[in-house]
Amino acid sequence: MNMYGYMGKLLFVDLTDRKIKELELKERDAKLFIGGSGLAARIIYNYLTADLSPFSPSNPIVFMTGPFTATSVPSGSRYSVSSLSAWGYWGESTSGGYFGAFLKRSGYDGIFVIGKSEKPVYLAISDNKAEIRSAEHLWGLDTYKTQEEVRKEFDKRARVACVGIAGENLVKFAAIMNDAGRAAGRTGMGAVMGSKKLKAIAAVGNRSVEVANEDALKATVEAVNAGSYMNITFNLLSRYGTLGYLELGALLGDVPARYYTKTVFPAEKVDSIALIEKYKTRKYACYNCPLGCGKIVKFGKMGVDEVDTPEYETVAAFGPLCENYDLDSIIYANHLCNAYGLDTITMGVSIAFMMYLSEKKVIEREERIEWGDKEKILSFIHMTAKREGIGNVLAEGVKGIAAKYKVSMDYAAQVKGLEIPMHDPRAFFGQALTYATSSRGACHLKPDWYMLDIGAGLAEIGLMPGEVEIGVNPGDRFNMSSRIQSFVTLQNFKELYDALILCKFSQATPFQILGMFNAITGFNFDIDTFLKAGERIINLKRLINIKRGMGRFDDKLPKIVTDALKHGPTSEKSPNVDEMLEEYYKVRKWIEGIPTKEKLTELELDFI
Amino acid sequence: MNMYGYMGKLLFVDLTDRKIKELELKERDAKLFIGGSGLAARIIYNYLTADLSPFSPSNPIVFMTGPFTATSVPSGSRYSVSSLSAWGYWGESTSGGYFGAFLKRSGYDGIFVIGKSEKPVYLAISDNKAEIRSAEHLWGLDTYKTQEEVRKEFDKRARVACVGIAGENLVKFAAIMNDAGRAAGRTGMGAVMGSKKLKAIAAVGNRSVEVANEDALKATVEAVNAGSYMNITFNLLSRYGTLGYLELGALLGDVPARYYTKTVFPAEKVDSIALIEKYKTRKYACYNCPLGCGKIVKFGKMGVDEVDTPEYETVAAFGPLCENYDLDSIIYANHLCNAYGLDTITMGVSIAFMMYLSEKKVIEREERIEWGDKEKILSFIHMTAKREGIGNVLAEGVKGIAAKYKVSMDYAAQVKGLEIPMHDPRAFFGQALTYATSSRGACHLKPDWYMLDIGAGLAEIGLMPGEVEIGVNPGDRFNMSSRIQSFVTLQNFKELYDALILCKFSQATPFQILGMFNAITGFNFDIDTFLKAGERIINLKRLINIKRGMGRFDDKLPKIVTDALKHGPTSEKSPNVDEMLEEYYKVRKWIEGIPTKEKLTELELDFI
Repeated sequence: MNMYGYMGKLLFVDLTDRKIKELELKERDAKLFIGGSGLAARIIYNYLTADLSPFSPSNPIVFMTGPFTATSVPSGSRYSVSSLSAWGYWGESTSGGYFGAFLKRSGYDGIFVIGKSEKPVYLAISDNKAEIRSAEHLWGLDTYKTQEEVRKEFDKRARVACVGIAGENLVKFAAIMNDAGRAAGRTGMGAVMGSKKLKAIAAVGNRSVEVANEDALKATVEAVNAGSYMNITFNLLSRYGTLGYLELGALLGDVPARYYTKTVFPAEKVDSIALIEKYKTRKYACYNCPLGCGKIVKFGKMGVDEVDTPEYETVAAFGPLCENYDLDSIIYANHLCNAYGLDTITMGVSIAFMMYLSEKKVIEREERIEWGDKEKILSFIHMTAKREGIGNVLAEGVKGIAAKYKVSMDYAAQVKGLEIPMHDPRAFFGQALTYATSSRGACHLKPDWYMLDIGAGLAEIGLMPGEVEIGVNPGDRFNMSSRIQSFVTLQNFKELYDALILCKFSQATPFQILGMFNAITGFNFDIDTFLKAGERIINLKRLINIKRGMGRFDDKLPKIVTDALKHGPTSEKSPNVDEMLEEYYKVRKWIEGIPTKEKLTELELDFI
Repeated sequence: MNMYGYMGKLLFVDLTDRKIKELELKERDAKLFIGGSGLAARIIYNYLTADLSPFSPSNPIVFMTGPFTATSVPSGSRYSVSSLSAWGYWGESTSGGYFGAFLKRSGYDGIFVIGKSEKPVYLAISDNKAEIRSAEHLWGLDTYKTQEEVRKEFDKRARVACVGIAGENLVKFAAIMNDAGRAAGRTGMGAVMGSKKLKAIAAVGNRSVEVANEDALKATVEAVNAGSYMNITFNLLSRYGTLGYLELGALLGDVPARYYTKTVFPAEKVDSIALIEKYKTRKYACYNCPLGCGKIVKFGKMGVDEVDTPEYETVAAFGPLCENYDLDSIIYANHLCNAYGLDTITMGVSIAFMMYLSEKKVIEREERIEWGDKEKILSFIHMTAKREGIGNVLAEGVKGIAAKYKVSMDYAAQVKGLEIPMHDPRAFFGQALTYATSSRGACHLKPDWYMLDIGAGLAEIGLMPGEVEIGVNPGDRFNMSSRIQSFVTLQNFKELYDALILCKFSQATPFQILGMFNAITGFNFDIDTFLKAGERIINLKRLINIKRGMGRFDDKLPKIVTDALKHGPTSEKSPNVDEMLEEYYKVRKWIEGIPTKEKLTELELDFI
């Protein structure tokens, strides 16, 4: 069936049997789960069992686009990858670049991969055709080289998503890389892909997406763009990239340093201006993105001419979190992670954890690493990707490190196996709730509450965040009382971004997003139906985590990131997660973290 | 008498008779008028008559330091120059660099200059000695060269304040320049200096300022610095310089373009990132300033190796206001103004006004200048400084231009003769009231209300502006109702900055400023006495303007800057100045703009 906004077909690939077939996308599923990680969750749910291992052939991995992909929606063409995470819970990650648009233009809304190949393979997709090809000659290549080789032998126009050595070696936080340096970094999707011996997926095609109402879409897209150009977040990201946040974040106490034990550090040494002053940079954008937060740095050192600029998260993780203020080493660390296919956040957090444990002398002298030891940071990255020596411990992330050194989980900066990213939960109490309740663990994006409460400032000077349209109001960042309903609404709303799929940096307002969705699909949703879809997806992912043995106990933050700090902008501040959770469950109609039957019925999830 | 915080002596110089003597600074005057432009107003008041011409020998010009100068107060060592403005009203300007500190360390709190020399002279001051020297060989030199020559022949360690060719030629907006590119730019103080044939003042010395309570001062200075390093304004100015505001300002509709007729323009072509990406820059700081907003640009063009970076005001005035988006020409225009000794704000506004009148065909074809004509902008600057051709009209500023072309004053962007700077009054209604009521005319600094209402945003994210301590709360930038008392309090408070003298970029809180003042002087003021001094100075300057024929009619803004714009962030917004004034006079206890006798008695100004 050909629906507006969708290609109407999914590619089903069984690597064990080397079988490929097409599955029809049902309109009912599209209406209930929209696309992206929403539809992926719907598909994956059926395959799950309580004891399925993430690296078992039976664990499916799903690459999805959404109704926005390859349309004229600005910043709307990311792709998502979902599966069980390397820790065995709900896993998902999205990535920008061009791969998502090219996958959809090849004729498929997504790819469902199951099984495991005996020998390395890659998948080549073009115009409603797909083929499993040998990747034996690509095994062991870095991600840049892999993309290059696949394009050379398959199709120069194709875009490629692939794993590097880290994915091959099942490093728990291996990333999937595409379009040179874009990453689906989190939850170890690269390890799952590697476990299937699937080195890469290449896609190219000329299929176009049919849109229900071209005029309405055009008008809304124009309004979105006009609004964006006068939007402060848009402009700052466009000019400075994500790293532009570091200075502001440091002043707010939002940038964790020294493994989350402080927030005061010399930000000027590693901020966006330091970068621009030190290197020549040029910007680049993802498919149909007017913002263009990406940058390429003219590096000219250590054998590397040009490199992808490190994002804010990466600089914070390899910088202040490790007490390392040497930009060269941060840029090179980022480059190594990209080439090996490693999540920079988890890599940085894991190294910082080793530094913290070294300081506490928990680790044997010969394995210790000192704060700011930039040479050792780089060698740890090499060793992790290759699982050599201490790298074999690092490759397990902070949970694995804590287990290895018999350290209390209070000090392992992770939630549900996913390492805590570079927004300190003491700086925005709502962000603490984000980490505690996000389906994939310590995710900083669903919802990105820190952005909302910074927006309180913008609201005061008349630059109102769009979220107020749906009753989500920015406010005091240290106070969530009577704001949990707002939180839940925003969480439902942000869940939709990964279904549509829309970049979190899109500055479209909620009603503009709904308008574009309706113009494309012709579904004619009202805002409540739209938000309900977000809520449905969250509940479904919750059910997946419950099936995997999770409960209320897993909705918690380790003490290392909630104990009040003595100094800096957040001194003496500590979010009370339990108190917020109490109210959160109430609003969600969950009992002890488990959705009630009534809620599931209301959400049309009663088939479960 | 030697008071704590003061040298206790003023230098009195009569250039007509070539007489120099010392005047004692009375403690009572110091307590009532603090220093800087406050004490200058007290001194000047006695000399004023209703028909005194600004360029008459009898018009005094007063260079002052304040109790903070040359102490450990961070960002506290500017100097001020006061006199009748080139338009005959109250005139004053301050400048940073080192000259202020050096003047005070030479042994004097200030210099009072009267009379007129027959031939060019300069004043050389060192360690309680002063000398009038011939400047015939310096006449005609630019300001950079003048400073260099004076230091060479008088004392290499000395710092020099001087005029350039513009001051010599009595250009109405001639500036006084010191420490290479620092400027006391506004109200034509350079023209008054030039009219006296006083080319320069050089000062050097080793006298130190005695402080009443060193320990208390040290503790407060440390607290100020600790607070500053976590302050967002401090950090942004320190990293980006004042130009860092351009991007944010553009998003708020605060940057006027095309002679105040629009606010939407390509900010990214002339913002701080464009500057940093295009040129190598290095920063520099004024005497004892931890912020250091100054920058030097490696230019390497047009015969200039290094130049002072243009400030935000300068870039806006020669950039968007003239629809000129060529950074090279803006930097060079700034350099020319510095070398000639011209106020960049008024120069830019005057050229933009010529462009506006050219478009309206009010000006003859051969004298017209088109929007963005960068070559002509530069040649107009040359001609203005030399008063050649059309430059002779430009040299009179917008009031003179309007008179020359018989255009309604509704279109002359000035208040009390002073051209409107680069904060659009439609973007912050309180800023409109600032322009209407400031003693020196359209001043953006007393108070810098736009900063306060941007601070509303900071307050919301928990970075509270210090002014709330004295009951001044940030709020809705388009609404001043019930905020006029706040405005008056802030205006009184900011008046103190130019008396102390403290840079407006100091991030010390009101009570920290009071604390430093008491620690230095031992006066032991409470906050009310302190604020009352600010109010006293404002009232005294008001009386000076009244004596010069001003009344309520002069507290007004031209239509060109208040008529609502059709597009951009401030579309349809128009401040109602008359309404605000009504309330303002009430709070000030002024009747039709004139202070009541009761108010003067309350302020101990009844000697007048």
